Amino acid sequence: MIVLFTDFGLEGPYTGQVKAVLHRTAPDVPVIDLFSDAPAGRPKPAAYLLAAYGDWFPPGTVFLAVIDPGVGGPRAPVIVEAKGRWYVGPDNGLFELVRRRAESARVWGILWRPKTMSESFHGRDLFAPVAGQLARGDYPTHKPRAFEISRYDDWPDDLLEIVYVDRYGNAMTGLRGNLLSTDARLAVSGRVLEHARTFSDVPAGEAFWYENSNGLVEIAVNAGRAANALQLEIGSPVAVLR
Amino acid sequence: MIVLFTDFGLEGPYTGQVKAVLHRTAPDVPVIDLFSDAPAGRPKPAAYLLAAYGDWFPPGTVFLAVIDPGVGGPRAPVIVEAKGRWYVGPDNGLFELVRRRAESARVWGILWRPKTMSESFHGRDLFAPVAGQLARGDYPTHKPRAFEISRYDDWPDDLLEIVYVDRYGNAMTGLRGNLLSTDARLAVSGRVLEHARTFSDVPAGEAFWYENSNGLVEIAVNAGRAANALQLEIGSPVAVLR
Amino acid sequence: MIVLFTDFGLEGPYTGQVKAVLHRTAPDVPVIDLFSDAPAGRPKPAAYLLAAYGDWFPPGTVFLAVIDPGVGGPRAPVIVEAKGRWYVGPDNGLFELVRRRAESARVWGILWRPKTMSESFHGRDLFAPVAGQLARGDYPTHKPRAFEISRYDDWPDDLLEIVYVDRYGNAMTGLRGNLLSTDARLAVSGRVLEHARTFSDVPAGEAFWYENSNGLVEIAVNAGRAANALQLEIGSPVAVLR
Repeated sequence: MIVLFTDFGLEGPYTGQVKAVLHRTAPDVPVIDLFSDAPAGRPKPAAYLLAAYGDWFPPGTVFLAVIDPGVGGPRAPVIVEAKGRWYVGPDNGLFELVRRRAESARVWGILWRPKTMSESFHGRDLFAPVAGQLARGDYPTHKPRAFEISRYDDWPDDLLEIVYVDRYGNAMTGLRGNLLSTDARLAVSGRVLEHARTFSDVPAGEAFWYENSNGLVEIAVNAGRAANALQLEIGSPVAVLR
Repeated sequence: MIVLFTDFGLEGPYTGQVKAVLHRTAPDVPVIDLFSDAPAGRPKPAAYLLAAYGDWFPPGTVFLAVIDPGVGGPRAPVIVEAKGRWYVGPDNGLFELVRRRAESARVWGILWRPKTMSESFHGRDLFAPVAGQLARGDYPTHKPRAFEISRYDDWPDDLLEIVYVDRYGNAMTGLRGNLLSTDARLAVSGRVLEHARTFSDVPAGEAFWYENSNGLVEIAVNAGRAANALQLEIGSPVAVLR
Repeated sequence: MIVLFTDFGLEGPYTGQVKAVLHRTAPDVPVIDLFSDAPAGRPKPAAYLLAAYGDWFPPGTVFLAVIDPGVGGPRAPVIVEAKGRWYVGPDNGLFELVRRRAESARVWGILWRPKTMSESFHGRDLFAPVAGQLARGDYPTHKPRAFEISRYDDWPDDLLEIVYVDRYGNAMTGLRGNLLSTDARLAVSGRVLEHARTFSDVPAGEAFWYENSNGLVEIAVNAGRAANALQLEIGSPVAVLR
């Protein structure tokens, strides 16, 4: 299975062209849109989101993960293998948490270049063919190249910021829920929020935090939009009170 | 064929994870996105929309229909068979019109539970595996359980409200068009609208009502956005004048 | 491969129903969403966009291209074959540039009508079955009908207007990049823009023009939204200064 994690959107031409390339390269492999609205141009919050959601998929999954504000510049294209899953995309921090949370991860630089490659759409021209080849099992076994991926050691293990706002207005943080006890409280936008198991456990209109279905601490309002009520956006800080 | 009717959106992680589960459960069954922007958290207008659009698909279709504001609470998960089509989702009124408009409908409670189930995403963890099993033909034949689905007898047979606004700004009502003669007039937002066959039959900018391609009375403006021009949103009332 | 080029959106019911028809008609043919947010109801800018993006796909591709403000009116349904690619949709100018840029194009009128056809959704009822038949190789070989497609001779070969704004706020023009030298400057919204190879070649916040990954001149801002910064929308004029 090939899983797409991008900021390309679905309605414009970008994801469609990527899928056309994947179909040509690996015609029998199903392609799943996981995020097409991952944090646009922001590899840091995207890295925490990818690490949380990647783990839900079975080993062997190939992720085409492209948040790539430096496309056309010097950043390298890489393949990362972590916990049996494969990640293809730019070397800009996007794979920092996936790599760091694996007991041992392997990294290859992508030296292959297509015959024609646009300056601005490596997702289609470079990363998609490589992801398709990987999904077919062809690569990088044949041409492994050791590569020193860039390190972002100053990034924390968990990010106390909003990393994604979903269509209901729920605001995901970069903090893993299993690190908090249920009596922890969260300070956000000058408010203090208590834990609840899920939406239906609090009155309508009430804000709370809970561990979402992929293990991230998420800020929500029952029958409401937390991001609007609490003025949250990607990058907004949260703090844990115990 | 499995048809998705949800408020999950396509760009975030929800529909993608549902499709990953469906692919694992029923790999050869095509999955169609019908609505991923059905009325968010509002089973009542969604019920009229589902009844109108469900009938367009052939018997044997499995609908994964999840508008589920009470997820994690006491509402039961159900399977409804109506006119040869299968519907999987929460018992919260979403299937009231599908059931009521069938000569005879069958209902089962879903007693199966996955080994791990999140509190907030039964669409992925509970409903998708069941829909996949149904689409394979495995369920509920093996384990039928009679179930008394909740009744919403006070809901009308046709809903004189807006139930959906599409991307062009056209506003669908919960009223079936074949119940109206073409000389009926519709009162909405203090205006009275006449019938037209379709957009190109009225001057640009003119508001009218017509029977849409799935049989619902819809309010539209030729070359314009009816929802903006007439300030319509889900729940806005309409009245029929004869 | 069947490629969709429409203004139908993905989240509402339109694209889903089209795909259900395509699946029924041509079950083994992959379907790719290229644009589902092409210029809504505006065949002219859409025609330049389609011509630029169509050429990226291999010969034999079938395009279901529906920007159809006159649906239900007298405009004819057509099939165009140009450079080995097949285009199915309304005769309203949408295929003017595809046809004009081919050495020789063939056009057929679609005389076939389905048993039941809605007044407002020919994309589903008429064009999708024909596109599916074409993708199977069945049509129009069996029933060719010469057809005089409408001509739009007053439309220029390249359109000096914005034809699409993508999700990043980049604004595509209807002008082919290979017609400009890299020292050409573009006047737009009272500003004069220089060429850059790609985003990472200019400072953050700076506006520039470049040739995008499908050959169109595009106006962009590094790490910013050009459409917002320069107040661009579909139809905004651009001028070339040399």
